[in-house]
Amino acid sequence: MRQSTSVAIIGAGPAGLMLGHLLAQADVPFVILEAQTREHVLGRIRAGVLEQGSVDLLAEHGLDADLRERGLTHHGIYLQYEGQRHHVDFVDLVGRTVTVYGQQALVKHLLAEHDRLGSHVVFEAEDVEPVGVAGSRPTVIYTKDGATEELECDFVVGADGYHGVCRRTIPDGGIEVFERTYPFGWLGILADVPPSTDDLIYALHRDGFGMHSMRSLEVSRLYVQVDPDESIDDWSDARIWDALQTRLGVDGWELTEGPITEKSITPMRSFVVSTMQHGRMFLAGDAGHIVPPTGAKGLNSAIADVALLARAILDHRAGDDSGLARYSDRALARQWKVQQFSQWMTDMLHVHHEVPDASARAFRYRSQVGQLEYVTGSHAAMQSLAEQYAGLPFTTE
Amino acid sequence: MRQSTSVAIIGAGPAGLMLGHLLAQADVPFVILEAQTREHVLGRIRAGVLEQGSVDLLAEHGLDADLRERGLTHHGIYLQYEGQRHHVDFVDLVGRTVTVYGQQALVKHLLAEHDRLGSHVVFEAEDVEPVGVAGSRPTVIYTKDGATEELECDFVVGADGYHGVCRRTIPDGGIEVFERTYPFGWLGILADVPPSTDDLIYALHRDGFGMHSMRSLEVSRLYVQVDPDESIDDWSDARIWDALQTRLGVDGWELTEGPITEKSITPMRSFVVSTMQHGRMFLAGDAGHIVPPTGAKGLNSAIADVALLARAILDHRAGDDSGLARYSDRALARQWKVQQFSQWMTDMLHVHHEVPDASARAFRYRSQVGQLEYVTGSHAAMQSLAEQYAGLPFTTE
Repeated sequence: MRQSTSVAIIGAGPAGLMLGHLLAQADVPFVILEAQTREHVLGRIRAGVLEQGSVDLLAEHGLDADLRERGLTHHGIYLQYEGQRHHVDFVDLVGRTVTVYGQQALVKHLLAEHDRLGSHVVFEAEDVEPVGVAGSRPTVIYTKDGATEELECDFVVGADGYHGVCRRTIPDGGIEVFERTYPFGWLGILADVPPSTDDLIYALHRDGFGMHSMRSLEVSRLYVQVDPDESIDDWSDARIWDALQTRLGVDGWELTEGPITEKSITPMRSFVVSTMQHGRMFLAGDAGHIVPPTGAKGLNSAIADVALLARAILDHRAGDDSGLARYSDRALARQWKVQQFSQWMTDMLHVHHEVPDASARAFRYRSQVGQLEYVTGSHAAMQSLAEQYAGLPFTTE
Repeated sequence: MRQSTSVAIIGAGPAGLMLGHLLAQADVPFVILEAQTREHVLGRIRAGVLEQGSVDLLAEHGLDADLRERGLTHHGIYLQYEGQRHHVDFVDLVGRTVTVYGQQALVKHLLAEHDRLGSHVVFEAEDVEPVGVAGSRPTVIYTKDGATEELECDFVVGADGYHGVCRRTIPDGGIEVFERTYPFGWLGILADVPPSTDDLIYALHRDGFGMHSMRSLEVSRLYVQVDPDESIDDWSDARIWDALQTRLGVDGWELTEGPITEKSITPMRSFVVSTMQHGRMFLAGDAGHIVPPTGAKGLNSAIADVALLARAILDHRAGDDSGLARYSDRALARQWKVQQFSQWMTDMLHVHHEVPDASARAFRYRSQVGQLEYVTGSHAAMQSLAEQYAGLPFTTE
């Protein structure tokens, strides 16, 4: 069957679903194609911290009903090293907050709102392939329930994540890849236990990074640095809690343990493609860039991208193509600042076991402690951390 | 011959000479032993930027006559990347300045003042060896004009630099070494030409780091990043100027060339020993720590050390040993902050040719540009840079 629309959005993650809402509210026709099932999309556990700018955008577009009810406003984070825990107060430092709210909850809400609007969201769209994006009228070919479908459109948006198909359709030489892989990963758990902390704790410990996050007032999310190729089978629940107790422990504070409901190991990567445009196809979110999770920037970067892209599409429909022409440059200008922040947080807080020489490894660790001593003792440095963590402005000029 | 004093200072560099003055002004007996000739000591070309705290300390002790006459007060630095030059104004940001004044001039002045006072400074003191520092009355044995001399003392101060003997007399296990070597060095020149800039320029260029510094209104000091094992013979004057023109060039600005009077290649290293004390021997300056020169912290760290050590010695003579007991911890607490700053400046501004993978190398370079874009666009980040470059407070509590 052959259909047509204005914007073919590939991927029903937060980037695609959010872009759909921004377009829907401006009466721009769109279709969202998602390779997975609805259940799979709703089941993905990902990021959990929204920048102020992301919260504001959701509120501005009336998409914050659930967020207002369930989101936890946080005034800062804790930085911990050598048994000391220091609070970095974002409100005092930059007058802004972040909101703890699972990406899973956001996706659920955005999808429910699409259902309410009757948006055209196709799950289990197989063998998706954007064609003719270099021309004036691209088509997205896909298979649904065994039948081949063709979706003609003005623009294709690749919001299909790091493993998505859109980026891979760009011919060799059309794109430059920037990539850093880290010699460690995060073992993350969800546990049915109230968080033992009010704000997130980021800890550098000689054994490795440790982190206490949360999903709600009843569910804790915790992480420990591991080798990226370790097997989750080697990490019993008892071993995980033991590592968390060691890495997060400080005098006079208790980490309450509880049943672990989910555990997995995720490798860490910094990844950027340039440009994020190929003809009439635009990449957004993880399809264009990946950050290590330490700065909580993945989800927020996706939202920043689609905010910019939606406006560029609206401008195009009003006869102004400059927004689309500049989309990639503007998205990447913000993204590279986000990349360097995510890398900075990651390098500062993880133990670099990979450094081969013992005195160089000792230098690395001790200089990270020096960095944390400086940062937690300097108003300017804490302000710099706070403005980046709470979120650089979405690109607007 | 057997002599005695209170403080045997090994090394007539800025740390040793400055400590001598601080002791002299409090009537504490001291002897300075220097392995090299007076001419050699006066000829060493080293650092050239004094922090506000260093200037203040020199002024406080009446050692700033020449500095006031010849020092150049600088209000900030320039950070340059991708053809753009940004000024970071220390006065606006943190209300402080730095002073460009060659270490060579400082050493000359401090030595002239010692001559005027009739201080006991022994040049060409050979085979210096501190013995019995674990006991209550150490001795420094040395050879002068073929005769063995013994200098009994209360304390030995190892201000004899990275290659000095003092640190090497500490038995294995008495000291921990933290060290990072960098895969690049600085090719530095002195040129008889007025500086082409008012403030120092630090430039990241795809070819490598470039820097425009100065010694006076008539003498420029410039640097380019090179491989640490390159031979200076491969760098003709023309090739050096060519590299400087490329790396420092921006539209509407001219780099004036002139006769090169000195050129050399220096490797770069981060190095810290802990502790900086062994019995009654205390290390100060380069004997205890080395930084890459990017943050201009080597000379200033030496001055910070001896300010702290002089006070601890005076307190000891007044019956309070706590200053000496805490000297190493306090000096190192400041030093690790300085280390992380020097490393941060260095990593941000040099091209990491050593990264083997092309996309990882591209990521590294582009994320440094992102870092510079962030830093030069953020008041908080510039303030953080400024407070560290202009100098963290000398340890006082």
